[in-house]
Amino acid sequence: MKDLMVQRYSDRLENWLAQADAVVAKLEKTAVARDAAGADPVAEIDLLRRAGLLTIAIPERFGGGGATPSEILRVIRRIAEADTSVAQILSYHLFGTRIGLDGSNTALRDKRLDGFLNRGWFHAGIAQAAYPPLLAARNDGDGFEITGAKPFTSGAAVADTLQVWVRFAPGTTVDAVDVSGWLGQFIVDNPAPGLSFGGDWDAIGQRQTVSGSAKLENVRVGRDDLVGWYPEDRRHPPHITVHVPILHIAFAELYVGTAKDALRAARDYIGAHGRPWVTSGYDRAGDDPLIIERFGRLSARLAAAEALADAAGRLADRTEAQGPALTEDGRGEVAILAYQAKITAHEAALEVTSQIFELMGARSATRRFGFDRFWRNVRTHTLHDPIHYKLLEVGDWALNDRFPTPDYYR
Amino acid sequence: MKDLMVQRYSDRLENWLAQADAVVAKLEKTAVARDAAGADPVAEIDLLRRAGLLTIAIPERFGGGGATPSEILRVIRRIAEADTSVAQILSYHLFGTRIGLDGSNTALRDKRLDGFLNRGWFHAGIAQAAYPPLLAARNDGDGFEITGAKPFTSGAAVADTLQVWVRFAPGTTVDAVDVSGWLGQFIVDNPAPGLSFGGDWDAIGQRQTVSGSAKLENVRVGRDDLVGWYPEDRRHPPHITVHVPILHIAFAELYVGTAKDALRAARDYIGAHGRPWVTSGYDRAGDDPLIIERFGRLSARLAAAEALADAAGRLADRTEAQGPALTEDGRGEVAILAYQAKITAHEAALEVTSQIFELMGARSATRRFGFDRFWRNVRTHTLHDPIHYKLLEVGDWALNDRFPTPDYYR
Amino acid sequence: MKDLMVQRYSDRLENWLAQADAVVAKLEKTAVARDAAGADPVAEIDLLRRAGLLTIAIPERFGGGGATPSEILRVIRRIAEADTSVAQILSYHLFGTRIGLDGSNTALRDKRLDGFLNRGWFHAGIAQAAYPPLLAARNDGDGFEITGAKPFTSGAAVADTLQVWVRFAPGTTVDAVDVSGWLGQFIVDNPAPGLSFGGDWDAIGQRQTVSGSAKLENVRVGRDDLVGWYPEDRRHPPHITVHVPILHIAFAELYVGTAKDALRAARDYIGAHGRPWVTSGYDRAGDDPLIIERFGRLSARLAAAEALADAAGRLADRTEAQGPALTEDGRGEVAILAYQAKITAHEAALEVTSQIFELMGARSATRRFGFDRFWRNVRTHTLHDPIHYKLLEVGDWALNDRFPTPDYYR
Amino acid sequence: MKDLMVQRYSDRLENWLAQADAVVAKLEKTAVARDAAGADPVAEIDLLRRAGLLTIAIPERFGGGGATPSEILRVIRRIAEADTSVAQILSYHLFGTRIGLDGSNTALRDKRLDGFLNRGWFHAGIAQAAYPPLLAARNDGDGFEITGAKPFTSGAAVADTLQVWVRFAPGTTVDAVDVSGWLGQFIVDNPAPGLSFGGDWDAIGQRQTVSGSAKLENVRVGRDDLVGWYPEDRRHPPHITVHVPILHIAFAELYVGTAKDALRAARDYIGAHGRPWVTSGYDRAGDDPLIIERFGRLSARLAAAEALADAAGRLADRTEAQGPALTEDGRGEVAILAYQAKITAHEAALEVTSQIFELMGARSATRRFGFDRFWRNVRTHTLHDPIHYKLLEVGDWALNDRFPTPDYYR
Repeated sequence: MKDLMVQRYSDRLENWLAQADAVVAKLEKTAVARDAAGADPVAEIDLLRRAGLLTIAIPERFGGGGATPSEILRVIRRIAEADTSVAQILSYHLFGTRIGLDGSNTALRDKRLDGFLNRGWFHAGIAQAAYPPLLAARNDGDGFEITGAKPFTSGAAVADTLQVWVRFAPGTTVDAVDVSGWLGQFIVDNPAPGLSFGGDWDAIGQRQTVSGSAKLENVRVGRDDLVGWYPEDRRHPPHITVHVPILHIAFAELYVGTAKDALRAARDYIGAHGRPWVTSGYDRAGDDPLIIERFGRLSARLAAAEALADAAGRLADRTEAQGPALTEDGRGEVAILAYQAKITAHEAALEVTSQIFELMGARSATRRFGFDRFWRNVRTHTLHDPIHYKLLEVGDWALNDRFPTPDYYR
Repeated sequence: MKDLMVQRYSDRLENWLAQADAVVAKLEKTAVARDAAGADPVAEIDLLRRAGLLTIAIPERFGGGGATPSEILRVIRRIAEADTSVAQILSYHLFGTRIGLDGSNTALRDKRLDGFLNRGWFHAGIAQAAYPPLLAARNDGDGFEITGAKPFTSGAAVADTLQVWVRFAPGTTVDAVDVSGWLGQFIVDNPAPGLSFGGDWDAIGQRQTVSGSAKLENVRVGRDDLVGWYPEDRRHPPHITVHVPILHIAFAELYVGTAKDALRAARDYIGAHGRPWVTSGYDRAGDDPLIIERFGRLSARLAAAEALADAAGRLADRTEAQGPALTEDGRGEVAILAYQAKITAHEAALEVTSQIFELMGARSATRRFGFDRFWRNVRTHTLHDPIHYKLLEVGDWALNDRFPTPDYYR
Repeated sequence: MKDLMVQRYSDRLENWLAQADAVVAKLEKTAVARDAAGADPVAEIDLLRRAGLLTIAIPERFGGGGATPSEILRVIRRIAEADTSVAQILSYHLFGTRIGLDGSNTALRDKRLDGFLNRGWFHAGIAQAAYPPLLAARNDGDGFEITGAKPFTSGAAVADTLQVWVRFAPGTTVDAVDVSGWLGQFIVDNPAPGLSFGGDWDAIGQRQTVSGSAKLENVRVGRDDLVGWYPEDRRHPPHITVHVPILHIAFAELYVGTAKDALRAARDYIGAHGRPWVTSGYDRAGDDPLIIERFGRLSARLAAAEALADAAGRLADRTEAQGPALTEDGRGEVAILAYQAKITAHEAALEVTSQIFELMGARSATRRFGFDRFWRNVRTHTLHDPIHYKLLEVGDWALNDRFPTPDYYR
Repeated sequence: MKDLMVQRYSDRLENWLAQADAVVAKLEKTAVARDAAGADPVAEIDLLRRAGLLTIAIPERFGGGGATPSEILRVIRRIAEADTSVAQILSYHLFGTRIGLDGSNTALRDKRLDGFLNRGWFHAGIAQAAYPPLLAARNDGDGFEITGAKPFTSGAAVADTLQVWVRFAPGTTVDAVDVSGWLGQFIVDNPAPGLSFGGDWDAIGQRQTVSGSAKLENVRVGRDDLVGWYPEDRRHPPHITVHVPILHIAFAELYVGTAKDALRAARDYIGAHGRPWVTSGYDRAGDDPLIIERFGRLSARLAAAEALADAAGRLADRTEAQGPALTEDGRGEVAILAYQAKITAHEAALEVTSQIFELMGARSATRRFGFDRFWRNVRTHTLHDPIHYKLLEVGDWALNDRFPTPDYYR
């Protein structure tokens, strides 16, 4: 069950995947123990760093790998084939390394490029899911102070640089403009005075994502740390908001990769430990047509999810290539395909990660094998946002020709 | 619910699809009546002929369109979006127009090219599914005589030229070689003395495929009509037998296209005639979230089937481009992807074509709309070969690394 | 695959089932032809009449069979095992024979009892689904005149006596009370001057239910034909409105019975005509584990639907036995169980009636066998009211402890 | 979502269920912590003992509760509504308390009755799944010595009395009859010299079943501890082997009970902590039709599983009541219904226990709630024997009229 050569990759992607394979080989060996411990993913990020995978998403003109969205997604999938937690925080990191590189704030750009390219920084967000933002910023001398708390902040505690969304307090100004009540996006160093983490992530899955709470008490940031600011009702152009559906494709990749990992684990287990059922009449579990047929079903279901995620990735590439020329309909199209891919991967992964046990047999439920981590990881991350609303958004397009209203989840 | 621009097509494919769209527009208008009548598809084939779609699969060097497998498949899908019967016989025709063009039998090649390119011939097979062949051939002067009967021969009764698989009778020779018991592939003209059709196709679906029986009583063919001959146990090279999985991708396209047609019909019906449920509190059926969500589910499921069929088509292109260099594993890979695509399309299409009624409501079951033809067509054609054996073949690869043994179904 | 002896029946029920079996044996022989013709079910009703099955639901004190709801439901299921159309109109008839027997209108009661017990009357409704009523009644001498039209009236054209819901026209009085705008329930003889039927039922399934339109032009009815009358907003006591969920159990029985018929037909076909798949290695299709396992799946799914319908029937018996003492919660409980049973039977029957083809193989799609009638019948009747609203009603109880608001569908 | 009053229970059953409710109330409070710890279920068994639930299955003539199979099953389901582990070992205990009470070995009977009725003994089996037996017995003075090991022995380590299946060593005699190679069933006290437990149960679910390994080294048993002995190929009468399918109904009850517990937990969580989705437009998560509808689906699916388990329990009662008069077909019928019930409960429980998370939302994945224990418990126990073989057994009856061959799993 090697991957079918469905697609041809660029040389650079082949190279990144080879690096990812080396990381995967290491992550696999310790997957069960690391899942049980749920420790902070410091060593894991270092593996990615040493493999050169942390800078692939930075544009080539800035010295990065210049990976397209589909290339980023392929690397995420590959890492998810060994560890869904690591793949999740890598997703936020990779797309996050692009924040603040464009625009007129060259000080911020230079600082971030230096951090990523020369110092191996890891990025996380503190407030993607802000709806509305839970943090407030106000003027403090020539900079700002940020105060507030956020319940979930995947990867933030171990990151070097953080994205933070805030609402400006009444009376706050930016460059002499009153921005009271506006939204702002800052970059915050980690560690920073006043910034603390709850260490309170304790979920049934995605245990190494360090997704616990963060608290900011009068955390000082400079004017140069400000990425952008605008009234809440400002409508962003499609090429800006398209990162939301593209991130949802990354979520689909987490599920596809994990399900591939699970199916491969089941296959290896059956080959090594599988016992034919006592009444089956077969010498090898792998020769039992009832097991083979179910394996075929899971394989086909997963292949469909993978093909749809691939298609979404290709469309994301074409979408990104359009830059500011992207229309609202163009943004809508990639959103629909992304959400179809997410729905499909969500359902396929839950089925695969639960059904493998029936194919492996009773002894596979031993904790030592840790085969339940696949289901726990998928089950945990698929709750990021409700599948029934993704179905509703896709359905509204399919039935009523309406594209999703761009926001933090759509 | 226009198609998302998931892929970019070549100019020639865009042109063929535009031609197909014109055919589709005509076929749609009469679909219900033609399904009810189940008449021979003579006028339908003529529409394809006038649209220039019958010669696209003939290599460019011979004056044809030179379509790649994926381009052929895309045209088949498009036609299936209006008429699954027509798309089915077009599938056999398009892949069949390539038979006898290579090899040393230039007389046959020239005759067929003249027929297809200058006379608008339509091709069908009499014995794809021969397992073992039901027809016998024996020497007759400088030619041969073929005798036997075949229960199912889609499109044959209305075709101009027929592919026929035979078993050579004891004592038969070809070019002075004793071929007793060997298999042979002939091309037979239609009409021909001794060739008759039962007119006995009467299935619940695919009603215009004229798939009834054929009888050959001492049908004379010449030496020039012989495409090939060999012992039954001869193992064909992978680039020859790869047409079997590629044809299965075409079957997947029949299901994908039909399901798209069904979903679009449901959408149009709901827009035009849908009534909100009495207790729903909505003014329009299309605003009911329970309907929208289910539409989203069907749409996502279909998108996955489509993406996987697309992937299989792309791999078929790469496979065909390898020509005789194709390895057994290479043939196996496209077979696995083809069968995964067929399984996925099979299940998605059955679900879509049955569930649309729940979204449209009670009045949609009126015969006048003919909405059951989608399910009847898919249900009929998906019985071509059992899905559980396709699952077994995919599973044997996924679990045991074994590729399907090439034969007439695998 | 005889029925498992899951339940023990009363002697009278065993007797009715024996009578039903004799009817079933006759109906089965002509099922395919009758489905194709879609003629009025006159001969079919006569079979039921001669079998003594038309009077079983009339209370024993009036000379009828005194069947409990669960006994009525069992007879309906049995008839549905041969013919879903006949079973549907029998459902309306059996529950309808009880209308007008209680209350003070002894003239109506005596007329109906005489009709049913001595003259073999068949009953149908013209306006169960009135929401609001489409017919109007106004005073006409000492009686009334009814005028209006109804698009669907299953069984009415061939019935002898009809239930009709009306809205009283402004100024209408009953027994000197002004009933302007109130609702009334009448019994109308068939034939009657001014009553006509459209003969326009032409659905993909349930073809012998003669469910077309009816028109009433100044149809005269007497004061004795009036069953009841009341303001539209009158809240009926639970023991009156409980007939709605009980009728939904009858719908579940239509699906359960049809699915049993389909599975049995598949089993018989495989035994008689089934061919092992060419690569299966089995001599008999019935020995192929992939077919056996799928048969097991369908059988288990159907058994669950049957058990739940049985449970709903038992609760209906207990509910009915409470008479006017039935509480709203008691009515709610039988409604929930009825709708759970309907949902389960709906889904099981659609799956069984579509999947049997995969187990029987390609030749089973021949029209001559008519195996698609099972799916067409289930697909048509399950549209009576949307399954997603039944799911909503069940879910509102399961999640929020709210019982369905009693009305014409809940 | 109180239970619908689908069935009426006997007074004694109502009393046992009231006792079970009191146990359930206690078990629920500590369920999460006990699942995490996976400790030996000593305190839990004591709760059952004090509630009087350990003796209900002993016949009334011996002073026990005289519960019928369906009554035992109902109690098991109720306990499973709080704790699947406890319910599992209770199943083995309750059916096990009947072992050795019939037959001529009155010393054994008296010893066991005294133990169960006066001393509160708990029973477990060491070798139900022996296939063939892994333990050997040989003569030792006037008694026997048993030696061997068994990998899984649910509940045994904390039981007072154990059932043990052995194979008699060559040369062994019972009452002067040579029983070399025969099978024997013994009762072994716990503790006993030579008997030890591995303490090695560490599965992802059913963590308090103490299902680890046992080792017997020259464990002495007396002639009075011998329940029965016979050649391996002896065919037992149906009323003896019928305990296998009845135990499978108990397994179905474990799944039904757990799924009910899970659905109720989800309902309570949504009521207390549920948040409407940000784009839903609802104030309460419980008002969102997309959540309500899915709740309805799970509720209906579970109701069907419950109704089928109920039906199987009723048939088990009738089957047991026949005693030695039970025919092979009679045994076969209860087996088919039992396996249909097990399949249905298996699938419903896996769906419910996984999908509840989507209805509760992201925060429900916190380990503190322990909501994954439902899925882990069901996933672990459903591996007891493969569902695909249960499907095969049901299918062989449905398609080929063949009942399962009685053995330790069928």
